Amino acid sequence: MSDQKIGIWLIGAWGGVATTTVTGLAALQQGLTPEYGLVSALPQFQNVGLADWSQFVVGGHEIRDTSYVEAAQHLHQNSRVFDAATLDKIEGTLKEFDSNVRPGTLMNVGPTITSLATGDVLNHKDETTSQTLERLKQDLVHFQKKNDLAHVVVMNVSSTEPPQTEEIKSLSWSDLEAKIGAGDFAIPASTLYAIAALQAGCSHVNFTPSIGCDLPALEDLSQQTGTLHVGRDGKTGETLMKSILAPMFANRNLNVMSWVGHNIFGNLDGKVLDDPVNKSNKVHSKDHLLTEILGYKPQTLVSIEYIESMGDWKTAWDHIHFQGFLGTPMVMQFTWQGCDSLLAAPLVLDLIRFTERQWRRGDQSGTMGFLSSFFKSPMGTDLPQFHKQFDLLEAWAEEVSAE
Amino acid sequence: MSDQKIGIWLIGAWGGVATTTVTGLAALQQGLTPEYGLVSALPQFQNVGLADWSQFVVGGHEIRDTSYVEAAQHLHQNSRVFDAATLDKIEGTLKEFDSNVRPGTLMNVGPTITSLATGDVLNHKDETTSQTLERLKQDLVHFQKKNDLAHVVVMNVSSTEPPQTEEIKSLSWSDLEAKIGAGDFAIPASTLYAIAALQAGCSHVNFTPSIGCDLPALEDLSQQTGTLHVGRDGKTGETLMKSILAPMFANRNLNVMSWVGHNIFGNLDGKVLDDPVNKSNKVHSKDHLLTEILGYKPQTLVSIEYIESMGDWKTAWDHIHFQGFLGTPMVMQFTWQGCDSLLAAPLVLDLIRFTERQWRRGDQSGTMGFLSSFFKSPMGTDLPQFHKQFDLLEAWAEEVSAE
Amino acid sequence: MSDQKIGIWLIGAWGGVATTTVTGLAALQQGLTPEYGLVSALPQFQNVGLADWSQFVVGGHEIRDTSYVEAAQHLHQNSRVFDAATLDKIEGTLKEFDSNVRPGTLMNVGPTITSLATGDVLNHKDETTSQTLERLKQDLVHFQKKNDLAHVVVMNVSSTEPPQTEEIKSLSWSDLEAKIGAGDFAIPASTLYAIAALQAGCSHVNFTPSIGCDLPALEDLSQQTGTLHVGRDGKTGETLMKSILAPMFANRNLNVMSWVGHNIFGNLDGKVLDDPVNKSNKVHSKDHLLTEILGYKPQTLVSIEYIESMGDWKTAWDHIHFQGFLGTPMVMQFTWQGCDSLLAAPLVLDLIRFTERQWRRGDQSGTMGFLSSFFKSPMGTDLPQFHKQFDLLEAWAEEVSAE
Amino acid sequence: MSDQKIGIWLIGAWGGVATTTVTGLAALQQGLTPEYGLVSALPQFQNVGLADWSQFVVGGHEIRDTSYVEAAQHLHQNSRVFDAATLDKIEGTLKEFDSNVRPGTLMNVGPTITSLATGDVLNHKDETTSQTLERLKQDLVHFQKKNDLAHVVVMNVSSTEPPQTEEIKSLSWSDLEAKIGAGDFAIPASTLYAIAALQAGCSHVNFTPSIGCDLPALEDLSQQTGTLHVGRDGKTGETLMKSILAPMFANRNLNVMSWVGHNIFGNLDGKVLDDPVNKSNKVHSKDHLLTEILGYKPQTLVSIEYIESMGDWKTAWDHIHFQGFLGTPMVMQFTWQGCDSLLAAPLVLDLIRFTERQWRRGDQSGTMGFLSSFFKSPMGTDLPQFHKQFDLLEAWAEEVSAE
Repeated sequence: MSDQKIGIWLIGAWGGVATTTVTGLAALQQGLTPEYGLVSALPQFQNVGLADWSQFVVGGHEIRDTSYVEAAQHLHQNSRVFDAATLDKIEGTLKEFDSNVRPGTLMNVGPTITSLATGDVLNHKDETTSQTLERLKQDLVHFQKKNDLAHVVVMNVSSTEPPQTEEIKSLSWSDLEAKIGAGDFAIPASTLYAIAALQAGCSHVNFTPSIGCDLPALEDLSQQTGTLHVGRDGKTGETLMKSILAPMFANRNLNVMSWVGHNIFGNLDGKVLDDPVNKSNKVHSKDHLLTEILGYKPQTLVSIEYIESMGDWKTAWDHIHFQGFLGTPMVMQFTWQGCDSLLAAPLVLDLIRFTERQWRRGDQSGTMGFLSSFFKSPMGTDLPQFHKQFDLLEAWAEEVSAE
Repeated sequence: MSDQKIGIWLIGAWGGVATTTVTGLAALQQGLTPEYGLVSALPQFQNVGLADWSQFVVGGHEIRDTSYVEAAQHLHQNSRVFDAATLDKIEGTLKEFDSNVRPGTLMNVGPTITSLATGDVLNHKDETTSQTLERLKQDLVHFQKKNDLAHVVVMNVSSTEPPQTEEIKSLSWSDLEAKIGAGDFAIPASTLYAIAALQAGCSHVNFTPSIGCDLPALEDLSQQTGTLHVGRDGKTGETLMKSILAPMFANRNLNVMSWVGHNIFGNLDGKVLDDPVNKSNKVHSKDHLLTEILGYKPQTLVSIEYIESMGDWKTAWDHIHFQGFLGTPMVMQFTWQGCDSLLAAPLVLDLIRFTERQWRRGDQSGTMGFLSSFFKSPMGTDLPQFHKQFDLLEAWAEEVSAE
Repeated sequence: MSDQKIGIWLIGAWGGVATTTVTGLAALQQGLTPEYGLVSALPQFQNVGLADWSQFVVGGHEIRDTSYVEAAQHLHQNSRVFDAATLDKIEGTLKEFDSNVRPGTLMNVGPTITSLATGDVLNHKDETTSQTLERLKQDLVHFQKKNDLAHVVVMNVSSTEPPQTEEIKSLSWSDLEAKIGAGDFAIPASTLYAIAALQAGCSHVNFTPSIGCDLPALEDLSQQTGTLHVGRDGKTGETLMKSILAPMFANRNLNVMSWVGHNIFGNLDGKVLDDPVNKSNKVHSKDHLLTEILGYKPQTLVSIEYIESMGDWKTAWDHIHFQGFLGTPMVMQFTWQGCDSLLAAPLVLDLIRFTERQWRRGDQSGTMGFLSSFFKSPMGTDLPQFHKQFDLLEAWAEEVSAE
Repeated sequence: MSDQKIGIWLIGAWGGVATTTVTGLAALQQGLTPEYGLVSALPQFQNVGLADWSQFVVGGHEIRDTSYVEAAQHLHQNSRVFDAATLDKIEGTLKEFDSNVRPGTLMNVGPTITSLATGDVLNHKDETTSQTLERLKQDLVHFQKKNDLAHVVVMNVSSTEPPQTEEIKSLSWSDLEAKIGAGDFAIPASTLYAIAALQAGCSHVNFTPSIGCDLPALEDLSQQTGTLHVGRDGKTGETLMKSILAPMFANRNLNVMSWVGHNIFGNLDGKVLDDPVNKSNKVHSKDHLLTEILGYKPQTLVSIEYIESMGDWKTAWDHIHFQGFLGTPMVMQFTWQGCDSLLAAPLVLDLIRFTERQWRRGDQSGTMGFLSSFFKSPMGTDLPQFHKQFDLLEAWAEEVSAE
């Protein structure tokens, strides 16, 4: 470990997950909170040489006009999270980080997200794709320079975009680059942010269901630029449970006939997902892994519904109907009452620490498959079971520790 | 695989688990049911060379006077399990197996179990320990000879005994043998059955929370006699869930503050466990693994209650109260509605098939740690996580397949 | 009570609810089952002079080609209901009732229901509305005459139709009659059955969410013909719970912020309701009463989903988010695991007995508001609280007992 | 309504329920909170002429040395209730009320409660019963005089005592008075507080399961002194649900086979109830009403367990196993996640307002049966159904409004 500063650049910088991440980071820097929820704080990662909380500086892109203090107060009031005393003590840090937030882009984010936009971002509506890309890149370069940062990890924690056309998945980086230049291709904002990151020599992590860097073209670019990336869709609640429980049904040869999951929550993410177009991206991400783990397709149903009174608290009810010996039908049900942002934020910090450490090994590029346990749709692995994914992380830690 | 016959000797032969095991076996022999619930029917065990269902013959020890047909009808009526048509078709097989059932022993089983005894077993009340041991052994020898069996696996599926004094845990086999001869030591019935099995050259599996073969003395004996054994307490429902879920809380560094589990059910097992002495054995078996997996001790509470209307259906409600990031309290709850005997019976058949296959490898003796995923308190391993235990089984299968 | 025979005419005669009703009736006639689930068997209705089970004869209209024996076996296999021994004993009665079933009509039932049709009903596709009405009426007249019945109660237990245009709600009986004659009006099948019933001098009960007799025109007709009618949508599960629980939140001044209800089930009804058009009728019927009881509109969400593995078993999960003192948010959740047809069938029998008794008082006509506790959208009352509705039934019973 | 001041005297003045009551009252006096949870704020009670929040002054008896500010902060930290901003604004009022709190008595409260005692109360250990009674009475008289109060309502919200001997239930007031004088009778503290109240001309309400005024002797005394009283055991959570749900099972003739209820919570009340002697009083109070409502006794099980992490939040899980038509078993389960003190406190305020209004009618004495809907074991009525109890309250309101 060194005293060098490390940059965290958050896409969706003043959103619920980002605000919670920054609140938590500031509290950790001041020693105001235990490290619960942080995977990187587990004993098995203590010899890996992860960065200290004190080394991190935050900036980001955002499409709404607010601030960390305001956003944190909103979460405190609406969702009964955070401690009033803690918020008082970290106000200074939050304000400092606020000064590093720059307008993002509304390019191809769909009407629901666009309708949320306020402030500076609205002044950039007429840019060409190339102009936007250049602007985003310069924001990163400036952030790194100004703060004298050894490295910057760009983390996408913004709202879910509508699904993309299939075409983009078949493009190489040179194809895509040409299309950006021509200006006639609807490139998703999440991918644009990822390109900016990799071209600026930053690492990129996509915590959202949006497509981001999960494209052959981006893997090309990452290899060419010698940068690191991974995604997608942080695995925090109901899907985490599925990747934990489904292996048990498989290993015990219990025949899952149907698996129904209903999710209700009331934060901004929920509002965006109430748009069926944006939702389809998310539901797909939650649904595919049962078939992968079980080896057959039970009837499944996943619903995500915006219930305003829930605030940032998500309740999932899952009903699993399965057949045991002699065909006997049985039932398992669970309810998960978790606070979405508070489940996501520590994983965001973990991903940043693990990514930065991987970058510090030197000569690393491409997809970081060892981080798959953090994602619903992990890149760089086809192991759907949580415990097998976690084994990858522990193996990586042993390897790094031994270096 | 060969055509040789293999014996299954059930302690608690006409109890709920045994009756369901035998009903299922008979249905499998006639091809009347799919293989759901059977671990040994999974693809990864198809090259191991496990015995065919057709090879098995059943006998056992029992302390009540009933029959498979009667016991199966009782389960059908009371708990709405089994199919009337299936029961008709297998009646002949059940009657055949009935003729192999012999009186067991009431030695040190406690007043609750003793109060259930009817029939022949009452004629053996005045035996000395040595006499009982000899009688039990002769029953096994006779069963093997009469049916021309290549091997016999003795499987304890009887009701839970009261806990034993600590003294027995410090005895070697020669110490224990001397005490049996002297006739002044309260040896648990479950251990006596295990000794009879190992001395008769049989394999022994203890599916109950009773102490059985989980003693240094029995490990000695197993090494001396070149026999196999394992236990204890089949992991079927709520505890299975704990060994699945607790690793997730550990791996995500979520601080489990309390884990409350309430179990209600209405079968004979439940009635025996309503006696607080017998129950203490069971509750301990369900409770210890959280600390082992989490690395710290949350407040825990496990209750098991006899609710007559439930019949053989067990409902468990678990409430897990945990702290995430910034100390935020969250809750997971699950309910498990399973039929106890129908969850246990396929595992009993699995254990018999795996044990017999291990015996067939030749030159094997002692505790079979690779079967730990089947038990709440597994012998021969200290890995409490289900998925790590299951890895042991898969590794064994690969080894055997390669022979 | 007399020895006179009474007719039960079931619309949807071989459906799940009807089959269960008839199975139960036959079992009651032979004394094979206790009277659980039957409101009319409660002590407070023993002096009312209700008809004996032995007095009832069954017939009905149906659009599929099957039989009671087949339908009952299907329920037994698929949903693990009924007792094999009971089914054997009542087979003769079921066959007798089968001979009274006649083809119904597919007029305006929508494509989903039409797609289920088999057998004789397909031969009546070219009838005019008047011809169909006449045919249905003649079936009732013939049934009554042939079986020498003192009275016939026509009970609609068929699948839910698509919602109707608003126009029909503003018509008087003479308007509607003219339109039927002209043959250019899309009259719902459920209403056509109701007209046939009232014109044939029968009583009519609508147990479905379809519009049936819930129209000013039908109230006119009922007054003119001196007949009785009531509906609609039997209150069996989740909505029953709402009409029980919501008054508590109201009386305790607990502010219900949101009430989410998810229903999963797998019977034919579920399949029909999987068609969004048919479903909208049902969801409306389940949703309106919260506002009526609470006096304000919380955010509500009701989903009904077809999960095949559930068979006739319905599981509802309700999540009620409310504010108590000092605005503190709290949560109540319930799961209801009931067998749909077995909850509905005794209420169908109750409604028949109460209706027949009301008819026997003489000089009665119009809507029977005292039966409102049986319905989700009760006619003839605006009291939404279950207990107040039940008070009406008890008051009626006292009145009748005193006559 | 007048401007006269009214006294609230809380037994257990700094406990969780009392602290929440006082916090809520202060917030209501300053208009800082809506009136959710307050029955007396419902429209149907607006013409009754209930007292204004501004009229109330608080004092009380306590056995521990703390304060409202401290106790409210503790609840805020431990159980995440109250709003930090609200607590700041009402600090002055809380301190004022603190100055009216006097030492209570430890007479016959059992070892668990005694072990909690700190401060002044320990100086009164050597008093005779007569001395204690006189002291308690003088505290009330002094409170009333000093604050110029038109009336004082004494409200017991202290921890549950151990159950009492049967003898006391057969005594008349003169018997009991004699025994107090003789000093050789173990009179429960809850009864002593009630006697003090009635003799001082105050009204008395017992919100606890302790015996308090639920005795013939106290009814005598109340008649003699022309005072009002009622109890016992506030109906806030799981039992409220039972009195709501059980009538549905009764009215639908669904045969409840078993009703299991598990309650977990972590406040001081929970700690006291962890003592099996104190608990038995509570469990009885929760259990009897099912039989009263259903007319038969299903198997029941009620557990109350102290789980520290829960703080003031109580989670109840209830599993109701019932038989419907044709004996088919079905299940309803509910979980209730409520904050105990915040459910109780508004009812405490309601009871005070209703009681004071009844006193203001003049010439009233004895048990107030119209308040039965507030209690688990209501005095003055034998109607166990919540809705019938609530009818009594509404009828009273109409009567008073008409005066």
